[in-house]
Order: sequence, then structure tokens, then C-alpha cells
Amino acid sequence: MGIVMGPNQYGKAEVRLVAVDRATSRHGLRDLTVSTALRGKFDETHYTGDNTNVLPTDTQKNTAYAFAKQAPIGAIEDFALRLGRHFIDTQEPVHGARVLVEEHPWARIPVGGEGHDHAFHRDGDEARTVAVTLDGSVSHVVAGLKNLVVLKSTGSEFWGYPKDEYTTLQETTDRILSTAVTARWRYLGTDVDWDKSFGEIRATMLEAFATTHSYALQQTLYEMGRSVLEKHPEVAEVRLSLPNKHNFLVDMTPFGLSNENEVFFAADRPYGLIEGTVTRDDVEPAKAAWYSLPEF
Amino acid sequence: MGIVMGPNQYGKAEVRLVAVDRATSRHGLRDLTVSTALRGKFDETHYTGDNTNVLPTDTQKNTAYAFAKQAPIGAIEDFALRLGRHFIDTQEPVHGARVLVEEHPWARIPVGGEGHDHAFHRDGDEARTVAVTLDGSVSHVVAGLKNLVVLKSTGSEFWGYPKDEYTTLQETTDRILSTAVTARWRYLGTDVDWDKSFGEIRATMLEAFATTHSYALQQTLYEMGRSVLEKHPEVAEVRLSLPNKHNFLVDMTPFGLSNENEVFFAADRPYGLIEGTVTRDDVEPAKAAWYSLPEF
Amino acid sequence: MGIVMGPNQYGKAEVRLVAVDRATSRHGLRDLTVSTALRGKFDETHYTGDNTNVLPTDTQKNTAYAFAKQAPIGAIEDFALRLGRHFIDTQEPVHGARVLVEEHPWARIPVGGEGHDHAFHRDGDEARTVAVTLDGSVSHVVAGLKNLVVLKSTGSEFWGYPKDEYTTLQETTDRILSTAVTARWRYLGTDVDWDKSFGEIRATMLEAFATTHSYALQQTLYEMGRSVLEKHPEVAEVRLSLPNKHNFLVDMTPFGLSNENEVFFAADRPYGLIEGTVTRDDVEPAKAAWYSLPEF
Amino acid sequence: MGIVMGPNQYGKAEVRLVAVDRATSRHGLRDLTVSTALRGKFDETHYTGDNTNVLPTDTQKNTAYAFAKQAPIGAIEDFALRLGRHFIDTQEPVHGARVLVEEHPWARIPVGGEGHDHAFHRDGDEARTVAVTLDGSVSHVVAGLKNLVVLKSTGSEFWGYPKDEYTTLQETTDRILSTAVTARWRYLGTDVDWDKSFGEIRATMLEAFATTHSYALQQTLYEMGRSVLEKHPEVAEVRLSLPNKHNFLVDMTPFGLSNENEVFFAADRPYGLIEGTVTRDDVEPAKAAWYSLPEF
Repeated sequence: MGIVMGPNQYGKAEVRLVAVDRATSRHGLRDLTVSTALRGKFDETHYTGDNTNVLPTDTQKNTAYAFAKQAPIGAIEDFALRLGRHFIDTQEPVHGARVLVEEHPWARIPVGGEGHDHAFHRDGDEARTVAVTLDGSVSHVVAGLKNLVVLKSTGSEFWGYPKDEYTTLQETTDRILSTAVTARWRYLGTDVDWDKSFGEIRATMLEAFATTHSYALQQTLYEMGRSVLEKHPEVAEVRLSLPNKHNFLVDMTPFGLSNENEVFFAADRPYGLIEGTVTRDDVEPAKAAWYSLPEF
Repeated sequence: MGIVMGPNQYGKAEVRLVAVDRATSRHGLRDLTVSTALRGKFDETHYTGDNTNVLPTDTQKNTAYAFAKQAPIGAIEDFALRLGRHFIDTQEPVHGARVLVEEHPWARIPVGGEGHDHAFHRDGDEARTVAVTLDGSVSHVVAGLKNLVVLKSTGSEFWGYPKDEYTTLQETTDRILSTAVTARWRYLGTDVDWDKSFGEIRATMLEAFATTHSYALQQTLYEMGRSVLEKHPEVAEVRLSLPNKHNFLVDMTPFGLSNENEVFFAADRPYGLIEGTVTRDDVEPAKAAWYSLPEF
Repeated sequence: MGIVMGPNQYGKAEVRLVAVDRATSRHGLRDLTVSTALRGKFDETHYTGDNTNVLPTDTQKNTAYAFAKQAPIGAIEDFALRLGRHFIDTQEPVHGARVLVEEHPWARIPVGGEGHDHAFHRDGDEARTVAVTLDGSVSHVVAGLKNLVVLKSTGSEFWGYPKDEYTTLQETTDRILSTAVTARWRYLGTDVDWDKSFGEIRATMLEAFATTHSYALQQTLYEMGRSVLEKHPEVAEVRLSLPNKHNFLVDMTPFGLSNENEVFFAADRPYGLIEGTVTRDDVEPAKAAWYSLPEF
Repeated sequence: MGIVMGPNQYGKAEVRLVAVDRATSRHGLRDLTVSTALRGKFDETHYTGDNTNVLPTDTQKNTAYAFAKQAPIGAIEDFALRLGRHFIDTQEPVHGARVLVEEHPWARIPVGGEGHDHAFHRDGDEARTVAVTLDGSVSHVVAGLKNLVVLKSTGSEFWGYPKDEYTTLQETTDRILSTAVTARWRYLGTDVDWDKSFGEIRATMLEAFATTHSYALQQTLYEMGRSVLEKHPEVAEVRLSLPNKHNFLVDMTPFGLSNENEVFFAADRPYGLIEGTVTRDDVEPAKAAWYSLPEF
């Protein structure tokens, strides 16, 4: 019996990178959070502290900044692929890389009805995300989004569930349905118009949320994934994590008032949590694409 | 010598209130966080635990929900005024009230190019705020906003400052200027079109931030306040708290690269913090309006 | 009518400062978060962007680090006083300073039953705080603590309160009482053994919380403040902000179970919020000491 | 080609459960956050919204509370096993369960040198954790801890790493090493004295951190895992996620000061992130135990 290192990776997390495109006086602005992690021949550093193979995380950070200067960043999917590939191509002990990028949205400040050339405001808390996994010559791209908070004020029911001795929930044919979408989808290849796909997939998921008459958040989850796969042959599978952000109807009968689904208490915790994968039945799974990501 | 109670208040904080307007099938959605605090004859509860005068904070919460049902919420300024007035009018020991409301923005989910009737998404992290202070028959309304994050990619300089033995900062005629605006402004009365004023004041501050060629964040702060007071006679004073969210130019000379204000490291901490009041020189100060609020 | 600058200050916030005392091989460790703000003749920077009087916030940060090197830090009260005094003494336009320091606790890692010489673990989330205000030659020291979370599993009642049409709360003679203490107390002078006073005051407040049979959180608040003032003549007043962290008894009657104050749901929001000042009736108030601090 | 549901689970997350042991007047206090998730025959709810098989998440919450009443909670490992087993045994469509429990520490308030009978204070931010996975009759227990923040003020070096064109980091033979430990370890069975194992494993990891002269955080990670496996035959593998919380030496040469590893700037982001598994080479891997957990 021996004690050995199993899977491992190391890198720099949450490099905050802001890039200004000054090609013209109408500036562009990009705001990214970049995390890189390397996989490879790192047994020695674990066993003895020999760092011969360990490109410093500080260097990884510098590389992210340098890459943002040396060529246009482009879509975060491409930026992550380039960055990860660089480490594999230039460091012999590095066999694989995981690169995570989040993009934070900004919009131009309106001045006199027009967007200003070089003044911006943050456009919400939602982030576009990508997790790129490189393993030798293989590349996986898992794009996504997070913090997309949505709510339907009607068109949601919940009934017909089993009741046991601990069940007190009342059935309902009209409730608020609200969630904060975290979605990740795996592309089948890398020859994709990333920005176009992202925009359409986000819009598709939003439409599916809005237009599905929901009998369960699970059903809404499936419809969100299904509609993406139906329209986007470039996507292999969609993983969704949907907290059921409960809005409880306030009981106003003690005050002699009715409350016809009008006034709600928005609860923080606990929350339902619905997680699942919607997938094509004819694609190969890709465990490596998801390894060390939260599974849903 | 004696030990006595000084100023005090008590109430319910952060009541999460979601209200759906179902007057037509095109629903309306309001999302508020409400905090109420009462001031008055509460010495006995402190000295002996006698609660004869202490309307429970649970009742205060219930009242907020009931008021949202009994009449349209309206502007948060009006809602806060009504709520606070109720406690003073109905509870003899209550002489004053402080009501804080934050409103969280939502937008309709676009479906087929149109906003959906009953499906919404959160529209950012920014909040509209109000702090209403009632003292007997006197009313103060301090409106505001927070989490409005803005950035200028040029049009900002910083030089001409004193240097001492600890100064290492280099002067610059071109830097990124970024801040997260927390603003509060005090209205001179309550006969105000709150929504109209709020929208215009927010737009005015954004324009001032965008169009001021800045030599100091202090100057930008003043211009933001001044432009509001110039256009809005209903406002007595503006208080601003502006963290200087530093974006540091990444030094790429070690990599043999230039970096012409293109790639930046967005730092979390520490940050500059510029705080100040812009006021009319002919209005009475109103200490009560601000008491127990963060001063800036 | 004119538009003018009112009160204002600027500085560097949340400088994260870790200092190792290496005088012997048994190291000491201090972990502070320091914020400095200057007050004085800063009209010009607001009106015109002239920075002649504006010592950069970057320099303020450097000064905090340099001071931690040039002399032992000592108690945070002394460190804050020295730092603030430096700015007033060396910068002619600076008339006043506000210095905030938080200290984060660490303890030695036990190895073989003894604390290690140079290995430490964070000892909780509670922080010791100080807010020093200097105005010309006047000094105010407001010490404090925050994030001290406490709970009594019995010895707390709540009844005898007024009931109106919105009251649904049931009276109780036995409930959980829990709060997260934020306390600030103002010293009458600066000739104080800061560490000794702090330790005793914290212990006194904890004891008062534990041993007061409580009929209202207000009563507990008063007892916490009173017991400090009674034992500590060096303290003028105590301000406390006590969120009532509700632990609601879970109703188990639907499951055919009793629940004799055994199992509770710990709620996040909303929460009661009890705020107040306990003071000596023969001391002068000191508005400047509290200006731009949250009042409670 | 079809679009189908892949792996999925649903449940209630972050149930805040406080339990008081009132068997004697010297009360006990437990503070847990419980999340349950069920796996099984849930295709229909996804495809059609048929909830015949879907035990409500509200019922899962109620069950957690009821179980805390019906028998002593015991170690969180046992509580999680019992709770998960209940769902499988009583709901035919449920084939598997994942139960996460975090325990938050409290200590007795000292009064007159003794811990009080029923007054407590939160004892830090660290949490003991468990993730139990049940799949039919198989049980996996992955225990752990998080938010254990540690620091060594010396005894850490970093040199001998590869340098490329983006490397600017200087080698060092003396630096601060600090991290916030998230650890999870998988037990080989369920016949374990959970509390004893947890206490010893935590102490072992702390000692390994303190006493390892470190040439790389990776080496420290391995030693922390190795020492646990060496002393604890009941543990199969240890997974660690160690953010390298950088403490950067402040350059005081511009002020004419030396800084002999005395004063540091504690940075928030970015941070190094070292993740890895230390395992026995003769145990079977257990993918199910980790599925839908963050991998490291």
C-alpha cells in the first residue's frame, strides 16, 4: 500500500482584466475575470517541493495580461482556447489546461440620447462564462451564463405530488416561479461563431422560461435545455442549475384582507434546487470537459 | 451621575416584498426591500423590559405587506411616507419613524421582439433608495441610488498633488476613472413627482460623470452634485460616496511590450474613497433627515 | 443662491496590512484593515480639480505601511492616533482626520499541545475596531467590535406589547434570543490602557448578554451598555446595533410531534433591528467623534 | 437523434436548523445547514410536468426538522445517512440521495470563569462538512471542513521554477504562506467514530501545515493529505483545495526603509489555486461519492 497523488491542477484564479480598445476615439471596453489551471507532470513538486516543472501562477497571470495586449481578445471562448494552448505548447510538462473566463457586461452611458464614446456603466450582474478544457490536442468548450434572475408572475402550477407524514405544502394552480439561471452548454467543436451562438442560446432559454406553462421547475429546466439543443446543432448537452427562489404568498386573512396572488415574501433560504443535464442521445459523453467543474 | 438611554430606535429590517399588479393580464412587478424603525417613548422597555409601548417588529413587517395590498404601492417615496405616518398616527408612544426602501429593477423578457406579459428578468444590481424620516408632523425625504458602477476609459487626469517622503504615485494625464456611485439627495418638500425627479436626477448624474473632463474624482463628485442642484430646485443637497475603483495599468515592459492605456488590472482593495456633500448655500440644514444614516 | 461644497473627506479605504514581529523566533502576527480619511481645505479640488492640497490616497496607503515598519504597531487605538496626527502635522491644508482600523484575530496552531512559533490560524470572524477622529488638536477615540454573534437558548421572554389589526405575533415566556453585536464606545480621553479596556469591556458585554433575563432585546442592549459604563469610568457612552436574529420554532403539530423549544428555523431576513445609545448624563456629547460613522 | 434527460437531482438547499438539547438545564446547541437532493425516476416531471414521483422539496425540509426532533442529531455524518436513507426507503421512485450538512461551531460564553449553561457565542467561521451519497444500498461518506484559514510567517520558500518571457516573479527562500483550507476526505465505510476521526484529522492537517518546511504549496497539500492517510486507515482519499492567499512584501526602498519580511499587503485577488487528491494506491475509486460535488 502506498499513498500517492491523484488528479491535481494548479493555477491563478480570478485575474481581473480590463481592456480598452482605443483603435478609434469610440473606445471599446472588455471586463473579464480569468482563471487558468495547468495539469501535467507535477508529482515532484508534491512529493519533494521540486519546482522544475511548475510555471509560477504569477507567470500565468502575466500571460493573460500579455495575451490581451498582443492580439484582440475576441470572444472569450477563443481567448481561453489560445491561452490554454499556449501553456501546453510552451511548457513540456504541461499536458492539459483548464481556463475559466467570465465576462462582465458594460453599456455606454447615454448622453443627449446617444451612447458616449468613452463613458460606460455596468450593465447588470449577469456574467457570460466559459470553461475550456485542453487535454493534449483535444479541446472542449463549455460556455455558459450565470446570475440570470428570472420570474414569472403566473403560468406556473405545482400539484399532483406524493404526500407523506411530513408534507404540509398546499397544491397550487397559480404561483410565482423564479430562479437564478446558471447554465453551461458543451459545444461539439470549436468552429463556432461564439458570440452569435451565445446570444441566440441566451435568448432561447429566456423565451423557453417565459413561454413554458410550468407544472414543475424540472419541466421548465428540460424545456430550456431542449429548445437550445433543437435550434443549435453545435451544442451537445446543456447543464442547468436552477434554485427555486421561493416567493411565498403573504397570508392576510388575520388582517381581514384577501391576497389574490398579489403580495409575496421573497425568501432567501432555504430554496429548492433543481439540477439536470439535457443531452442528445447520440453524442459521446465528455467527462474531461466537466472534470473539476461543479457537475451541474 | 447617572447612566441613561440616549437616542434609540427599533424596527424590522430588510422585509423582502414582491408585489404583482394583476389589474390586467399584462402584469406589473415591484420588488422592494423595506426597513422600518420607530422612535418615541421607549425608555421603559430599555430600563425594565416593559413592552407596553413596543409595537412588535413583526407587526411592522405585517403592516408593510398589508399596505402593499390595501393601495397601489406608488413611488417608494410615497410608500415610505404612508408607512411611517401610519405608525405615528396609530401608536401614541411613537413620535418618529425612519423608513428605508430599496427598489430592485426588473424588465420584461423579450419574446418575439416584445416584452412578455408576465415573465421578467432582473435588470441589474443597481437599486433606487429612499430614506424617509418623520418627526412628529415634520417629513424629510432623502432619495438616492446605489451600486451604479461607472467607468471612463479616458478624460481623467491626476497630477499637481503634494509629494512627501511616502509618495510614489506617478502623475498622469490619462487614466481610467471608475466608481460605484452611492448618492442620496434631500428633497425640500414632499410635493414632488418622485419618479420623474428620480429618472432625471439619475440621468443628470450619469451625464455629469461622462462629460466632465476630470482632474480629480472630487471634481467629478462636485459636478455630479452641482448639475443636479442646478436643474432640480426641489433638491436641497446631494451627498455622494464615490469609491475610486482603481484600474492599474499593467507594466508590460518586462515582456518587451508597450501598454498604451489598453490593459488594466482591476483592483478590489484598497480603494480611494471620496465623500462629500454638495448643497445650496441658502437652505437650512436638516440633521434629523440624516440621523442614523451613513453621513455620506 | 449658490451651490457649494459642504462637509467632505477623502482617503484610502481598506488597506490590508499584515505585520510579522520577528524580534525573536517566536513570531508575532498582526492583521489589520486600515482606512484613512482627511478633512481640510479641499474646496479647490472640488471646484476646479486643482490638487495642490490633495495628498494622494496612494500616499496615505504607503504611510500606513511605513508606520507599521517604523515603530511597533501597538494597540490599534494608538496606531490610528499616530497615523491621523501625522497627516495633520505634516500637511498644512489638512485640519482633521478620521482613521478606522479593524483588527482580525489569529491564534497559534497547536502542535504537540503547544502553540507553534510561526504558524497561525484565523480565530473567528469577529473584529476589534476603532474610529479615531482628529480635529485640530482634539482627539476622539471610539473603540468597538463587530460580528460578535451570541445566542441564549432560554432566559428570554417577549410579551405585554400592544396589538393592532396587523399583529399576529404570539406572546412567549421562553424564546431563543440571538444577535450579532456591533458595539462602539467613546473614551473620555486618550490616556487609556487600550488592550486592557477592550478585553474587559468585551467580557462585560458578553456577561451582561448571558446573565440578563431578557424581556426585550432593548433591555439587553441597555444592560450591556450600562454594565460597561458602570465598570469603566474611562468610557463616556456606548452605542449598540443589535439585529434580532430570529430563530423561529418549527411547528411540528402537522407531523404529530411536539416541539418544546427544541428545533428552530434560523431566518436570514427580515430581522428585528434594535439600536441605541447608553450614555452618562453628565458628559458632553461629541458629535464630531461620530460624524460620518453609522450613528448606531 | 433524440433529446433526453441525463443525470439530474432535485431537493431543498440550505435548510437552517438550530437544535437545543434541553435534557438538563445545561443546554446543548447545534447549528446546521442541511441540503438534501433526491435521484431516481424523475423523467416524467421533466418531460410533462407530471409530479407523481416528486416528493416536494418543502417536505424534504420538514423531514430534516422532524428528524432533528425525533432522535438526537448525533454526528452530522450519521444524521445525513439517516436522512438520506429515509427518502430511499419510503419513496419508491427515489433510488439515490445526496445529503450535505455543514455544522457551525458555537462555544459557551464565559461567566465568572465558567461556560454559561445556556448562553453561547459563535466560535468562528470555519465549518465542519459532510456529503453523503446513497445509491440504492450503497453509502458513501465524504467528510470535510472549510474556511480554515492558516498562515506561516516563515518556513516557506519558492524557487527553482521555469522562467519564460512572461516571468517576473522573484525567487524567495522566505515568504509568508497562507491559505484557506477546503478539505474533503472519503471514508472507506460507515462504522467510524465520526467525531473522533474528524477532530484528529483536523488536528493532523493543521500540524502538517505548521511543521512542513514548504518549498511549494503543492508540497504542503500533499503532506496534509499524506499525514491524514498515514494515521487514519478509515480514510481512502483526501481532496484539498488551497487558495494561495498572497501576502506581498511592501517595497519600502522608496521611503528609505528596509522591510525584512515584516510588513505585507494581503491581496484579495487574484490568488494561486492549488487543488489535488491524495489517495491510497490500493483503493477503488468511487466516482459516485463525488458526483456533483466540486471535484477538488
